[in-house]
Amino acid sequence: MGLGIKHLLDVYSLSKDDVMYILDTADTFKDISTRDIKKVPTLRGKTVINLFFEPSTRTRTSFELAGKRLSADTINISASASSVTKGETLLDTLKNLEAMNPDAVVMRHLASGAAHFAAKHVDFAIINAGDGRHAHPTQALLDLMTIRDCKGKADGLKVTIVGDINRSRVARSNIHLLSKVGCDVSVCAPASMIPAGIEQLGVKVHYNIKDALDGADVVMMLRIQKERHGGNYFPTLREYSRYFSLNKDTIKYAKEDVTVMHPGPMNRGVEIASDIADGELSVILPQVANGLAIRMALLFLLAGGSRQ
Amino acid sequence: MGLGIKHLLDVYSLSKDDVMYILDTADTFKDISTRDIKKVPTLRGKTVINLFFEPSTRTRTSFELAGKRLSADTINISASASSVTKGETLLDTLKNLEAMNPDAVVMRHLASGAAHFAAKHVDFAIINAGDGRHAHPTQALLDLMTIRDCKGKADGLKVTIVGDINRSRVARSNIHLLSKVGCDVSVCAPASMIPAGIEQLGVKVHYNIKDALDGADVVMMLRIQKERHGGNYFPTLREYSRYFSLNKDTIKYAKEDVTVMHPGPMNRGVEIASDIADGELSVILPQVANGLAIRMALLFLLAGGSRQ
Amino acid sequence: MGLGIKHLLDVYSLSKDDVMYILDTADTFKDISTRDIKKVPTLRGKTVINLFFEPSTRTRTSFELAGKRLSADTINISASASSVTKGETLLDTLKNLEAMNPDAVVMRHLASGAAHFAAKHVDFAIINAGDGRHAHPTQALLDLMTIRDCKGKADGLKVTIVGDINRSRVARSNIHLLSKVGCDVSVCAPASMIPAGIEQLGVKVHYNIKDALDGADVVMMLRIQKERHGGNYFPTLREYSRYFSLNKDTIKYAKEDVTVMHPGPMNRGVEIASDIADGELSVILPQVANGLAIRMALLFLLAGGSRQ
Repeated sequence: MGLGIKHLLDVYSLSKDDVMYILDTADTFKDISTRDIKKVPTLRGKTVINLFFEPSTRTRTSFELAGKRLSADTINISASASSVTKGETLLDTLKNLEAMNPDAVVMRHLASGAAHFAAKHVDFAIINAGDGRHAHPTQALLDLMTIRDCKGKADGLKVTIVGDINRSRVARSNIHLLSKVGCDVSVCAPASMIPAGIEQLGVKVHYNIKDALDGADVVMMLRIQKERHGGNYFPTLREYSRYFSLNKDTIKYAKEDVTVMHPGPMNRGVEIASDIADGELSVILPQVANGLAIRMALLFLLAGGSRQ
Repeated sequence: MGLGIKHLLDVYSLSKDDVMYILDTADTFKDISTRDIKKVPTLRGKTVINLFFEPSTRTRTSFELAGKRLSADTINISASASSVTKGETLLDTLKNLEAMNPDAVVMRHLASGAAHFAAKHVDFAIINAGDGRHAHPTQALLDLMTIRDCKGKADGLKVTIVGDINRSRVARSNIHLLSKVGCDVSVCAPASMIPAGIEQLGVKVHYNIKDALDGADVVMMLRIQKERHGGNYFPTLREYSRYFSLNKDTIKYAKEDVTVMHPGPMNRGVEIASDIADGELSVILPQVANGLAIRMALLFLLAGGSRQ
Repeated sequence: MGLGIKHLLDVYSLSKDDVMYILDTADTFKDISTRDIKKVPTLRGKTVINLFFEPSTRTRTSFELAGKRLSADTINISASASSVTKGETLLDTLKNLEAMNPDAVVMRHLASGAAHFAAKHVDFAIINAGDGRHAHPTQALLDLMTIRDCKGKADGLKVTIVGDINRSRVARSNIHLLSKVGCDVSVCAPASMIPAGIEQLGVKVHYNIKDALDGADVVMMLRIQKERHGGNYFPTLREYSRYFSLNKDTIKYAKEDVTVMHPGPMNRGVEIASDIADGELSVILPQVANGLAIRMALLFLLAGGSRQ
């Protein structure tokens, strides 16, 4: 059995079988990172390029390490130092890379749809590492993997996502992926952060974290971007925190064994209290470990690796 | 037979035999990048440092990938993060690198002559990846390789270079290299972009693209640097574009099978029309592929690689 | 015999045996960098992350090359592109890295004590590559290695350190390490650059370079940071240079075979005259070569390498 896709652009285009296949493959790779020799020859002689038009340490590091532990040659390109600043089009940048025969390009771009555009025009695998507000599929896959690790399944679970849903590609990708595998997804935020018409995705909308958490098996807290907000979408950070943060008071409304997730980087004391982030219910660091495994799996599946 | 040089500083110091040897070596390496396993152990245990005092993605990526596909250890140093900003001299920077025993340093610098200076003082191979307005020898070599691929030869061909000749190290290196191998080179630009006395290099000068293209076998369009020009060397970009761009009207003056080249990054609609850049006569992307092969050949020849 | 430490945080926590073990190990690795094949499989499958919150080319390059020559996978993270700018705490950054199972993290941070803080919270090896004004232990170790190379021993030597002692982590680490191995250490600077109470470390203080150099076996000149000083700690650079630089006049006060050291990058003509920096007594470049060997030794000893 193989994967039904050549690129990872979003979660819509993944069949449920694809999703399970990626997760199962990630499970088999996870162990590599805990061995004494954390390296397999799977992608030896393959080239993986990290093409980041937005700064990112976490995701870039995760992909770079995934590539290196599979023995791929990895190259980092960041926009600030790139030809892009000389006015080259995205298509020309991609075609130039294509002329050097990479096997996969991991791409983060500020424009929604950039990865889809890329995939239409190149003959190497595109892995979307975040495009605008649109999609961040590897984040959703690692989140699902983490939920499955904790709960043994995803089907039928109640998952609540709290934060700036409107501008979050993490939220968008999770809503689609978790719904696809049978979760009952709710979102919670001030009205200014809820996209219009989101109920049509089958999502319940709450404006009150207590209602939103009622009976939740899993809660995902999104980062409040201090540098972008403040005054525009809610009066103050303190105000936001009072009504929408996960803390020892609000977590009581969820199930006792609720799984606490956050894609990072966290603003401790804003969207999540430190004792919750570091508490027994938190799987924030296992999410990071699973992220590495998911990216190894995707590079293996899409960059033409072979088991040896 | 070996190469008559220890460094690649410019094209003047290459004998015709050296040029052909580099091109033939590049031909043998080209195939590696299209294999399933794009890696050979040729430079295993060798260290290649990319020392870039000017930002560059295209050239740095090409050299980094060339090194990695030959199994060299590659290190990137960019000026903005370097000791240079702390006032260290170029010589001290180079001597410090020398103390760590690299096999080759690929160097881009804003000062003309920087690579020559470096080569006089170090015992590793210097490969000039562009020094000021002076030289960009790997670009000229990849251009010649591309011409040879298209036309089967270079001797006797009429090559026209259009653009800011005065400030272009690409033009300077190509004029010298192509003249050396028997091409009949013309340049074309507004008078403000033609260096004084260039006719003494055996180059014909045109101020009109129609005359310049008359009978051309090859046309090389240079990038107009929007950010630097505008108002100084010609009235407006539109004005430049009207009189000096390659488009469906002007290309008619060249031979029917004229080969269209551009070192990139392109300003589409300024110096070259998109339909020409993407048309059948364009070899802009094969130039990129050949660039990788030329750089693999040079690293192999100069960094002490051995065929295994 | 093994090392008595799990991290390299400072020189205080090293026993004299530890110091000698690190230096002896470095001696055995030094030869690798001069071979035709400059690579051993010692750290194959290990992950070394360079986490630099302050810009550094010299130290980062040295560690990166050390890792690569030992066959480790190396990843560079620089603060400017990192989650740190998004408000993540240092601890969260470290815990995120920990979730990806690195074997060693080489860390430079502007806050004194950052490496100690890190070491308390993670299960991988921390190597301090400089924390604020506090410590730069690999610099002190490479300096001691260089002194031992030149003089055959360290015990009983008179070492004079000249420059901004107050703000120099290089000075602090050297004072402690060299005193530990039996050197008689003096410091010399304008009074504004001498930390209060430094005599309690057993160090002699001089405000006059001639007195300071009297009978010196070794002199270490520190970089004057032009960009930070000027007007605050001494009247002018010329003034500083007149009274505190090492030049052909002042060097006469030291022993005839005095060893001249500088951690780089140098401000030639400010703290050291060019003829001295490049003269026969200078071991400034051997310091760089030893730095690479020391870092290879530490990565080997702390990142779990095995001799093969």
